[in-house]
Amino acid sequence: MEATRIPTRYGAELPEWVLEELADVPECLPTVEHRMRLVHRLAGRNYHEGTGGPFAAIVVEEESGAVVSAGVNLVLASGLSAAHAEVVALSLAQTRCGAWDLGGPGQPVHELVVNWRPCVQCYGAVLWSGVRRLVIAGEGEELERLTGFDEGPLGEDWAEQLEARGITVQRNVLRDDAVRIFGRYGDSVSQGGVTVYNARGAYTARHAAT
Amino acid sequence: MEATRIPTRYGAELPEWVLEELADVPECLPTVEHRMRLVHRLAGRNYHEGTGGPFAAIVVEEESGAVVSAGVNLVLASGLSAAHAEVVALSLAQTRCGAWDLGGPGQPVHELVVNWRPCVQCYGAVLWSGVRRLVIAGEGEELERLTGFDEGPLGEDWAEQLEARGITVQRNVLRDDAVRIFGRYGDSVSQGGVTVYNARGAYTARHAAT
Repeated sequence: MEATRIPTRYGAELPEWVLEELADVPECLPTVEHRMRLVHRLAGRNYHEGTGGPFAAIVVEEESGAVVSAGVNLVLASGLSAAHAEVVALSLAQTRCGAWDLGGPGQPVHELVVNWRPCVQCYGAVLWSGVRRLVIAGEGEELERLTGFDEGPLGEDWAEQLEARGITVQRNVLRDDAVRIFGRYGDSVSQGGVTVYNARGAYTARHAAT
Repeated sequence: MEATRIPTRYGAELPEWVLEELADVPECLPTVEHRMRLVHRLAGRNYHEGTGGPFAAIVVEEESGAVVSAGVNLVLASGLSAAHAEVVALSLAQTRCGAWDLGGPGQPVHELVVNWRPCVQCYGAVLWSGVRRLVIAGEGEELERLTGFDEGPLGEDWAEQLEARGITVQRNVLRDDAVRIFGRYGDSVSQGGVTVYNARGAYTARHAAT
């Protein structure tokens, strides 16, 4: 096999506008509401910028609120289907900390803050990342119904499975704001302005008849 | 927030030894057994090289058998907990094809060949990647029992959920060889030679008393 034909590296990079958006954000965000407000700002801008879907996530040090990394969904910008907001934020945090285990020896308690319950891929990414807390704006059918994205199958006991691995879950932090952003995103999709990049469109297919 | 403190890019790169290993591999691998044999070679070498766990995956064009990309678990080499073999192979294939959807218009049928049923994160990554076929050496408790890795919770209907999204599953391709590699890896772990990087060690914790 000709070695030159085989791709050897992949990656993703935050777009310039995320750094602009972060410029006026304090180094530390004291409460989960402060943290989620930043997530919502990034999620609401991401699809307007054409970088990906209406999703964002940040990793913070739970106690101090120091922002370690910020991610948005970069599927469209990076060309990588795995570059969901959670994977971006977790990977950037691990790059910064020089550790594949954000919960390893000497690490502070790291918290992932995200604007909905993660899809099945990102659920797994949370499990293996070393974060000890997951904070979500909400869960439920609104995301799939309003945006057309498929979240994949997750068991009823998804939160218990996280807890069993030492990851606590906090829900319903500024939930209404999350739903509002998904609704506006759905309107943009209907008007033909944005790409629902989810490859197989399974949610649409499964619910077309209902 | 000081923009210079925020990390802005992440990524992973195949180690040199993978390219060496691929040098004598034909451009096309005609059968699933040929494909799995390559996967087993890469998986068996990966942990000896210290790049990650005993896992590998390749993306091929199903009909011609043309190898599009090859991945190994790069958690240790990249410092990214998400850099499992499947994510590496899929991301490299998408980089090469310039497409976040390997099943999009104009694409051939892409197949992911991997040496066990994917963990919950990589299961989701398969769902969103656009591959139309998943070929696995095996599934079952051997992986967790022999290696100590946690695979996370997947529903009983995991294969049906893939099929519902247009992804067919083929199982039991050179299964015994996969189990043999996991066994050898487990022996190396017992002898203290390698790192089980799975962050929370949940499998060990959950089964310690059994």
